[in-house]
Amino acid sequence: MNTFRVIILGAGSAVPTLHRAASSQLLQYNSTYILIDCAEGTQLQLKKRKISPMRINHILISHLHGDHYFGLIGLISSLHLIGRTQPLQIFGPPQLSDILQLQLKASDTNLRFSLLFKPLSETPLQQIFNDKQFEIFAFPVLHRIPTWGFLIREKIQELNILHEFIDAYHPDIESIHAIKKGADFYGQNGTVIKNHEITRPQPRIRSYAYCTDTAYHEPNIEIISGANLLYHEATFMGSLSREARMTFHSTTLDAAEIAKKAGVNKLLLGHFSSRYNDLEPLLIEARQIFRNTELAMDGEVFEIE
Amino acid sequence: MNTFRVIILGAGSAVPTLHRAASSQLLQYNSTYILIDCAEGTQLQLKKRKISPMRINHILISHLHGDHYFGLIGLISSLHLIGRTQPLQIFGPPQLSDILQLQLKASDTNLRFSLLFKPLSETPLQQIFNDKQFEIFAFPVLHRIPTWGFLIREKIQELNILHEFIDAYHPDIESIHAIKKGADFYGQNGTVIKNHEITRPQPRIRSYAYCTDTAYHEPNIEIISGANLLYHEATFMGSLSREARMTFHSTTLDAAEIAKKAGVNKLLLGHFSSRYNDLEPLLIEARQIFRNTELAMDGEVFEIE
Repeated sequence: MNTFRVIILGAGSAVPTLHRAASSQLLQYNSTYILIDCAEGTQLQLKKRKISPMRINHILISHLHGDHYFGLIGLISSLHLIGRTQPLQIFGPPQLSDILQLQLKASDTNLRFSLLFKPLSETPLQQIFNDKQFEIFAFPVLHRIPTWGFLIREKIQELNILHEFIDAYHPDIESIHAIKKGADFYGQNGTVIKNHEITRPQPRIRSYAYCTDTAYHEPNIEIISGANLLYHEATFMGSLSREARMTFHSTTLDAAEIAKKAGVNKLLLGHFSSRYNDLEPLLIEARQIFRNTELAMDGEVFEIE
Repeated sequence: MNTFRVIILGAGSAVPTLHRAASSQLLQYNSTYILIDCAEGTQLQLKKRKISPMRINHILISHLHGDHYFGLIGLISSLHLIGRTQPLQIFGPPQLSDILQLQLKASDTNLRFSLLFKPLSETPLQQIFNDKQFEIFAFPVLHRIPTWGFLIREKIQELNILHEFIDAYHPDIESIHAIKKGADFYGQNGTVIKNHEITRPQPRIRSYAYCTDTAYHEPNIEIISGANLLYHEATFMGSLSREARMTFHSTTLDAAEIAKKAGVNKLLLGHFSSRYNDLEPLLIEARQIFRNTELAMDGEVFEIE
């Protein structure tokens, strides 16, 4: 099975603490690395986990509150200083490009690598990346300033043909390509063998959804429906639902409700208010509504299964 | 004696490491706190030292290379979130204001406190702050982009009158004010007592000079002449003088030479290249030229004596 996992670099909110970094996570799909959000200090979080920032292929920035992007210019500068030449693709709110360019200009920096910036649009669902292995979608969530959620979904891979079939029928190269793509086998004597009889079962298509910062927002349920893993913010406990509404954030109950209605496999809570030292009560509360819930803690790795 | 000390928050350069933060230090003069430079992660460095950022009165930014200011916008945002209302004075390169404003606008933040920004000018020596206790000067140093050094100098305080004199002569309130300012005492019977006989010796006026990032630059020797403590960058050892020249940085030998020629009391080396894990050789090298040299290490406190 292809590697598909998320490494939590920070799941705090707003003001960073010594024990909980603000938003950043690294999504790995085989050898492709996608950084999602990049709070101040993200480059040190990577160093702590012994992950070279050179590995990062794409960066997704959800919105322009500092706890989601203030570490980006520092990361870019460091990549320049340590000699990156490979292009870096960034997806983010339109103004992000101006902010980066102004700072690069002020430091008189001519990057050694191409910074490919693609602004996110207000389209309800926008495919922003697509290759042989997976695709990435962006969709607006509900926050105080324009903010996007992301859905990363793997693609149907070519099927694996059973060795026993090849040994018995010696199919030609054209037939092999067709079978890998799902075709049945047509033998010389008119025999037809169904594709599912001569290929290994296709693993289920997996997807990962990232929703922060956002208030409880039902319109996105369909988009993230059936995701294997949903990272959803839970800044507050249920008792602070008024604060959540006022600041366009979610409570643990909101996050669990969305997970339940979207029928995801697992829910990962994050973006915790710094008022909570012990996060266990948040977990207990969410599990009352959605049992398969976990807490995103700095440094933890979650396989997308 | 008035408290006058510098707390090193970071003395690394360029790419931050887990063991050495990039440039930032906090200068304390009695109850006034001046932050000099503010690399990414400075707010966490303050947290580590249990220093509330609310205490900071002024911020000086030397130049717009990221390892000297990328933590500023995060610090400002955190001050806003934790409820600062007291104005914050920032001195820095002119473009810094645009960079901060663009980011505050993008996050739709209306600060609860006044951000008073004063751009530094290219004047050879500019007094940028002046109160009863001390004054601050900025002066251009020699770097790849416009960069300023800073000199913080305490003022002559009022003199302390000896108790024995007051008990013997019972001077009136006007005479007391005059003596505190340095006047002699004129008695009723025509006696004159010299000021130095009836006051405690005035402590020597102390000053602190900050020079980073800069190549070896003799024109500033006069400005920092006689400083009690000089923080001077020493990015490289003497063997890398070519790299130092090319990048407009200094070697340990350059820093020591400047300290010697300026006749300062003590030299503090900083802005070390991340290639040096062990800094002892840099210290030994500098001491060959200027004996009273120390290394600026994260978390250390240096009294200005």
